[in-house]
Amino acid sequence: MKYCSSCGKHVSRKVPDNDNQERWICDSCGIVHYQNPKLVVGCIPEKDGKILLCKRAIQPRYGYWTVPAGFMELGESLAQGAARETLEEACAEVQIGHMFAAVDVVDAGQVHIFFTAKLLGDFRVGEESLEVAMFSADDIPWDDIAFRSGRYALEKYFEDDGQNNGVHVHELRSKRF
Amino acid sequence: MKYCSSCGKHVSRKVPDNDNQERWICDSCGIVHYQNPKLVVGCIPEKDGKILLCKRAIQPRYGYWTVPAGFMELGESLAQGAARETLEEACAEVQIGHMFAAVDVVDAGQVHIFFTAKLLGDFRVGEESLEVAMFSADDIPWDDIAFRSGRYALEKYFEDDGQNNGVHVHELRSKRF
Repeated sequence: MKYCSSCGKHVSRKVPDNDNQERWICDSCGIVHYQNPKLVVGCIPEKDGKILLCKRAIQPRYGYWTVPAGFMELGESLAQGAARETLEEACAEVQIGHMFAAVDVVDAGQVHIFFTAKLLGDFRVGEESLEVAMFSADDIPWDDIAFRSGRYALEKYFEDDGQNNGVHVHELRSKRF
Repeated sequence: MKYCSSCGKHVSRKVPDNDNQERWICDSCGIVHYQNPKLVVGCIPEKDGKILLCKRAIQPRYGYWTVPAGFMELGESLAQGAARETLEEACAEVQIGHMFAAVDVVDAGQVHIFFTAKLLGDFRVGEESLEVAMFSADDIPWDDIAFRSGRYALEKYFEDDGQNNGVHVHELRSKRF
């Protein structure tokens, strides 16, 4: 960040009044530009004992498999975000179930939240995917899963075996999420 | 948003390539400035069957009672954020337990996440509080709770009665959170 998004003048790192850490503050108008972690929301769509995964057609991790997930948007709920990402990546409608995993990807400034989900109909390859397929628990391509957070979610999903055992909270501390 | 935080030139609302909704895009350098929901993290510290609440010394909702909570910062996990807010507002150290509530405050662009917690020692009034006190379930000042999300969290906390019943997900659709 170099310029104030409100007035266009230069910003500097300073500690605001009544605060205890440095923020970007405008040298001219004084506005404080807070920066906070972003939410990634995803789900594991299941049907007939198999789950849906997508092979990524975009970077990072092009060509690796992932659960449907992406950045939460303004104007939607966590569950709506997870369902929207599934529609975008796999052209699939889902009924979101319970929240079962939350991964703090601290050094990337992200929190990844995962829900169970029921796949309601058909699916096909979305714009961000090379391939979309259903996998049984024995067939998960563990060595080709795109992200550590998604891998953690898959592990806990199969451990839970359909039960709502609360949210498994996990912390990752490197940028390779 | 009026100016690009990267180059200082004007921004406009446009739909980026391979996207489906308008974002702020720089007219000059082309950078897309995504805006996403923010995370608020909090907890309900308990000791000897009573829970800790703080009376707010800041706006919004000055003078109303709240569970310790605030915006999650970069560089911390969800649980660390909830513990930090408790330290700031009530000078109290806590051991964070399980995640039990997630409230989508959609029109404010926020997600509020709540944990159970064990109050480890003493407490006193923090800078953002007028008063900090312990309440038994029968004494909660229900009519003077600052935010609907915190009120929901308190209701579910007492309903759960110490059990981990997973995350209660709730959606609020007005700006009065």
